[in-house]
Amino acid sequence: MSTVPENAPEHCPGTNSEAAGKAEACAGCPNQSICSALPKGPDPAIEEIKHKLSNVKHKVLVLSGKGGVGKSTFTAHLAHALAEDPEKQVGVLDVDICGPSLPRMLGTEGETVHQSGSGWSPVYVRDNLAMMSVGFLLGSLSDAVIWRGAKKSGLIKQFLRDVDWEGLDYLVVDTPPGTSDEHLSLVQLLTGGGAGQGAGIDGAVIVTTPQQVALIDVRKEINFCRKTGVAVIGVVENMGEFVCPACRKPSVIFPRTTGGAAKMCEELGETFIGTLPLDPRIARSCDEGKSFLEEVPDSPAVKAFRSIVKKVVSFCETNGQMREDETGETMMDTA
Amino acid sequence: MSTVPENAPEHCPGTNSEAAGKAEACAGCPNQSICSALPKGPDPAIEEIKHKLSNVKHKVLVLSGKGGVGKSTFTAHLAHALAEDPEKQVGVLDVDICGPSLPRMLGTEGETVHQSGSGWSPVYVRDNLAMMSVGFLLGSLSDAVIWRGAKKSGLIKQFLRDVDWEGLDYLVVDTPPGTSDEHLSLVQLLTGGGAGQGAGIDGAVIVTTPQQVALIDVRKEINFCRKTGVAVIGVVENMGEFVCPACRKPSVIFPRTTGGAAKMCEELGETFIGTLPLDPRIARSCDEGKSFLEEVPDSPAVKAFRSIVKKVVSFCETNGQMREDETGETMMDTA
Repeated sequence: MSTVPENAPEHCPGTNSEAAGKAEACAGCPNQSICSALPKGPDPAIEEIKHKLSNVKHKVLVLSGKGGVGKSTFTAHLAHALAEDPEKQVGVLDVDICGPSLPRMLGTEGETVHQSGSGWSPVYVRDNLAMMSVGFLLGSLSDAVIWRGAKKSGLIKQFLRDVDWEGLDYLVVDTPPGTSDEHLSLVQLLTGGGAGQGAGIDGAVIVTTPQQVALIDVRKEINFCRKTGVAVIGVVENMGEFVCPACRKPSVIFPRTTGGAAKMCEELGETFIGTLPLDPRIARSCDEGKSFLEEVPDSPAVKAFRSIVKKVVSFCETNGQMREDETGETMMDTA
Repeated sequence: MSTVPENAPEHCPGTNSEAAGKAEACAGCPNQSICSALPKGPDPAIEEIKHKLSNVKHKVLVLSGKGGVGKSTFTAHLAHALAEDPEKQVGVLDVDICGPSLPRMLGTEGETVHQSGSGWSPVYVRDNLAMMSVGFLLGSLSDAVIWRGAKKSGLIKQFLRDVDWEGLDYLVVDTPPGTSDEHLSLVQLLTGGGAGQGAGIDGAVIVTTPQQVALIDVRKEINFCRKTGVAVIGVVENMGEFVCPACRKPSVIFPRTTGGAAKMCEELGETFIGTLPLDPRIARSCDEGKSFLEEVPDSPAVKAFRSIVKKVVSFCETNGQMREDETGETMMDTA
């Protein structure tokens, strides 16, 4: 078991790998001598997390290559949309340690987390929508979290192991941009590096904007999913078009120089699940901690968004591979 | 000497600190036992980097809290603008290891780096504009760099120590969003944690967009600069306004719900150095690897941009605290 598959050349084999510190990729890594000396073997937290999350049916990651493409906005509204069904329990986990936006977007800024007998209690946005973010652990909103990767990974482990969600239908995990510590830790701790070994992940939604500099990074993110065995639920193209409020003429702010996300998905054999327009009312709703779905229910953006959410739900229900084991406990199989 | 100041509570004291592994902040950190065992003392690379960069007059960091605010676009065009003076030598260092956009934006995608007797040779955009990026070290554009923080820090050290810039007036460093490994390593290696100990940094330009969720992260970034002793040259507000190409009416895409960057700067006592409009031709120029300054020289965006560049240059020339030491060698003093 390792944090990245052993067939990944030129990349870190993961600190748990037998090859840690010895692989070709380790040459020049400042951690090489440390890695060689670490005790090897599966992290016992993987089993603890599997147990803790055994009452969480679906786990969805929201990823992006580039930052600022609307990942947290998407996460917040996916959670709002899922929680519109009062029968469903929804949780949101914000692992963007250095730049947590979700407390602001979900209107829970300034809330604090309480410790209970069974772990950390999440903050409730409404009855059936709970969330956890590093934002709740800071003294002030301006506090910078100046942490290196290892410490960020430690907090992610705590979040996964110690938050008491009390049973969820969906856990949506918002991530920072890139393919580094936060992503490796999440995937390693949730999948244990292989089939059935961890709590499991249904798949990842990848958010992008239409221009080529964003798409280059999305290809890297898809590559990351393939290497770590995380299913790609689909790619969402955000900020596709802006309709001038004065003359109603559409403009493309981030031009599809190379055909946009749809063409990229076609090339790579991935699923394109929709385009969202750029609507200033979305940013405003996020700043005010409100749901855009409720603020402007009839807008084209909301219609496009609902169609995307349907596809995500359908993927999870079809491919999530739910199974009831003998004890009647619901478990995920992410083989 | 440490990677973060010793008065930073609840944060990592830095791997070089005497308190590494022992501080209150270290409780729960998975690296705690490793840190306690590491040899302490200043990293010898700080002195090597100081020597290597002794012929680089000004060093400017481009930072942002949130991703996708136009940091790399700003960096590319700051470099283009500085290099318009044929007497000036300009270098760009891209330390966004997981999402390097600059090779695309500066039209050098697919170039490779050569090894020379005195180090790595940068890639030349034009005679007086050189650059280095992890993008040049990848086999394919889609390759994901799945690296944890320690390995990213190792590459940044190599970039600072081994790239042979052959003398520069300006070195502009583009960073990923956030306040983590890349930022700590850069600041530690360039300043050595204190006055005159490293090669030095003139200051940082902080790029943001106008909405509150971006400004929250900018406050964290300013906090980071204050804690690490990096001067803030000023805050740039990007994507301020969009002028509809059909009816010429301006729209604000990311509303200034809380007054925007200018008001924030006033509150924090930082310098606001300008607003840039959202112009789709900027994204297109970046996708095509061209300079927006040359493509649409008379646009309002270019005029606004040139005014910002002037302020950055003026800051560096006034506050860069150049001094000639006895040997006639030019050195920076970042006290």
